[in-house]
Amino acid sequence: MKIPYKIYLEESEMPMHWYNVRADMKNKPVPLLHPQTKQPMTLDELSQVFCCELARQELDDTTAYIPIPQEIRDFYKMYRPSPLVRAYCLEERLGTPAHIYYKFEGNNTSGSHKLNSAIAQAYYAKMQGLKGVTTETGAGQWGTALSMACSYLGLECKVFMVKVSYEQKPFRREVMRTYGASITPSPSNTTEVGRKILEQFPETGGSLGCAISEAVETASNLDGYRYVLGSVLNQVLLHQSIIGLEAKAAMDKYHIKPDIIIGCAGGGSNLGGLISPFAGQKLRGEADMRLIAVEPESCPSLTRGTFAYDYCDTGMICPLSKMYTLGSTYMPASIHAGGLRYHGMSSVVSQLYADGLMEAVSVPQTKVFEAAELFARVEGILPAPESSHAIRVAIDEALKCKETGEEKNIVFGLTGTGYFDLYAYKRFNDGEMSDYVPTDEEIAASVAKLPQI
Amino acid sequence: MKIPYKIYLEESEMPMHWYNVRADMKNKPVPLLHPQTKQPMTLDELSQVFCCELARQELDDTTAYIPIPQEIRDFYKMYRPSPLVRAYCLEERLGTPAHIYYKFEGNNTSGSHKLNSAIAQAYYAKMQGLKGVTTETGAGQWGTALSMACSYLGLECKVFMVKVSYEQKPFRREVMRTYGASITPSPSNTTEVGRKILEQFPETGGSLGCAISEAVETASNLDGYRYVLGSVLNQVLLHQSIIGLEAKAAMDKYHIKPDIIIGCAGGGSNLGGLISPFAGQKLRGEADMRLIAVEPESCPSLTRGTFAYDYCDTGMICPLSKMYTLGSTYMPASIHAGGLRYHGMSSVVSQLYADGLMEAVSVPQTKVFEAAELFARVEGILPAPESSHAIRVAIDEALKCKETGEEKNIVFGLTGTGYFDLYAYKRFNDGEMSDYVPTDEEIAASVAKLPQI
Repeated sequence: MKIPYKIYLEESEMPMHWYNVRADMKNKPVPLLHPQTKQPMTLDELSQVFCCELARQELDDTTAYIPIPQEIRDFYKMYRPSPLVRAYCLEERLGTPAHIYYKFEGNNTSGSHKLNSAIAQAYYAKMQGLKGVTTETGAGQWGTALSMACSYLGLECKVFMVKVSYEQKPFRREVMRTYGASITPSPSNTTEVGRKILEQFPETGGSLGCAISEAVETASNLDGYRYVLGSVLNQVLLHQSIIGLEAKAAMDKYHIKPDIIIGCAGGGSNLGGLISPFAGQKLRGEADMRLIAVEPESCPSLTRGTFAYDYCDTGMICPLSKMYTLGSTYMPASIHAGGLRYHGMSSVVSQLYADGLMEAVSVPQTKVFEAAELFARVEGILPAPESSHAIRVAIDEALKCKETGEEKNIVFGLTGTGYFDLYAYKRFNDGEMSDYVPTDEEIAASVAKLPQI
Repeated sequence: MKIPYKIYLEESEMPMHWYNVRADMKNKPVPLLHPQTKQPMTLDELSQVFCCELARQELDDTTAYIPIPQEIRDFYKMYRPSPLVRAYCLEERLGTPAHIYYKFEGNNTSGSHKLNSAIAQAYYAKMQGLKGVTTETGAGQWGTALSMACSYLGLECKVFMVKVSYEQKPFRREVMRTYGASITPSPSNTTEVGRKILEQFPETGGSLGCAISEAVETASNLDGYRYVLGSVLNQVLLHQSIIGLEAKAAMDKYHIKPDIIIGCAGGGSNLGGLISPFAGQKLRGEADMRLIAVEPESCPSLTRGTFAYDYCDTGMICPLSKMYTLGSTYMPASIHAGGLRYHGMSSVVSQLYADGLMEAVSVPQTKVFEAAELFARVEGILPAPESSHAIRVAIDEALKCKETGEEKNIVFGLTGTGYFDLYAYKRFNDGEMSDYVPTDEEIAASVAKLPQI
């Protein structure tokens, strides 16, 4: 059967359930711990932070298939199914016998896969009768996605945007404003924690950790508000399983058996969503394939981190999660893939990695941008720097096939577009981009500060 | 039959020919005239400016279907077929019984429909053994599209970018650089015409007219180079007919009979491409529907211009075309839809309008951005300011249906995304956008300077 350039599922073939890989895991991810008591977070405690249904999803590690509510499925139909693209042009340019596929999540205005979970989280907030949600955003993809979802449902949306991004990415901010969100540069004087930080460091450009703290404080002080988060959590991976389910359905339709599946890994939302159904097959002994996480050399949580309980935020006010971590005090170098600058990793992904179901590899950013440029030129899509980590390794694997003559099926997640990352491309085009590899001492220093559980 | 949210044609259903509406026109567009001799341009003369096959296409007003070469069809498969989207969410928000559809051309990195002609023009240049092409770009969509096409085919690409855009849109410039194009802010000291202008107006921000002159001069001085243009020309409308052909095939598949088809109109490339097959039906007496061109109130060539021979460029070095024009000396107000700031209109579109086969309407930009914001919020795509002109009128027509209770099928062209137009959205969000309606005297003054033919 001739494989088309782009495989689009019919609407009737779109998944009606999310897949919860935890249900098939022998070693389940261990529970979140309360930041003060260090005891497992109960449903009640979680429901004070997240809305009830999301707290339930966070804790549910036995239900394999969770129905996607009709309203969310209707929203998905606006920008999904996303195409599974056969990268014929890239294959030809590389001269590889491998078949390369990518699942492209960038065809919506948020520019990434983040919208898949944003609409779900906003929907449950709406169903609970909430008035609005708060969140933080760094690179801006998550904030944009949440603004879009809230605007669609008529929810208020308050985004704390890391001040340096707020100033350097005025256009990201403007997209969110167009979707009716209110954007506050963080740290701000609207919260206690913000005022405290500003007093101590009046010139600071802010950090994701600080923005999280401000968003959490704001939600807890406002009636009818909850805090929402765009990665790391079990619930987010659940919603993102739509990526892997659609990819698998498209491949099944054309009898394609993937040999290698590759995703970039920051907090793990895209990677976890993409690989979930395939990891499920491996866990149930139904199929086998390589699953590869790609992280930046400058923020190597899987490849050089420690599998231990750690705070999800640098402010240490959020619950603790058992994960591969560089330590919540680790300060990642300011690489241009902002979405991958996170000290830890989703506990689901971490457990799969610990159990040997996945591999991980780290790559330097200049090599990532070389791959991004090649991809853009032959495939016609300017990729996000985050996604380009996966492109790099897909190309490397395809070149290995060229040496061995193997016709492997290589699938990777193209999470988004780089239209708001052109400053990074400029640095690359100007030859001003450099790489950074943290020393063992540097990593050891922040790992030494891990909480004792 | 339930209409899906998005109708994607199968690859096998994609058009294999472009449609040349001139073949079905009783009143053919009259020929281009030589700027000096004022005589009809011959194939030989045109071939000194454009490559041979494109010159032939420019003159061919009898062949209805022109085969699309395989290599172009393969490139099209990378980003086409573009979806015909049923705007269910917009319909619901408006509470209209009308069925609204849009043909979305923004799902490629150039962000617009311009790629459809860029790849065709670059392909014929390559086939002729040329080394490279030159062009000008204002808003940057055409320059980006051409850079992408040239990079794919291994052609050199020299873009003269209006200096004020070069400075205000550094990221557009960066996309083109990533695709390997060389970008020169215009006016520049690399050409005679540029040096002359810089001497006279050292502080000028440049203009499209000047950039065209520099691109034409550069092409004529370099061996193996030709000049290419992204709108207005017959050949461009021919390539852009892929939009209308796909839209018609998608509608035919679901037995949808369009009542109204709406497109924004600058030089006419998108509008002409979208309406061509439908205008053909009208011309052949096979079907009837309203065809509406939407232009900015500040640059109303169809609604307030004169149907006469005029220069295609403000520098008056290009051929003359018979078209609706405000006069080549007309300086359009600096509205944010840069792609619609053109004094004239494609001669095909002009002739169809003169013959009563089309309507035209002009709209103020603040109303356009109100429509853009509403559309973005319910349909999940941040539209380009140009495209939003069509959205405005589609909404207006849908609201009329709400009053009358008519279930009309309204189709419009969503030519692109607004990711590089956020400065305009910012002005709108800040309440700083205003409208401009030229006075009759202003238009009469530039029309008075039309060449006497």
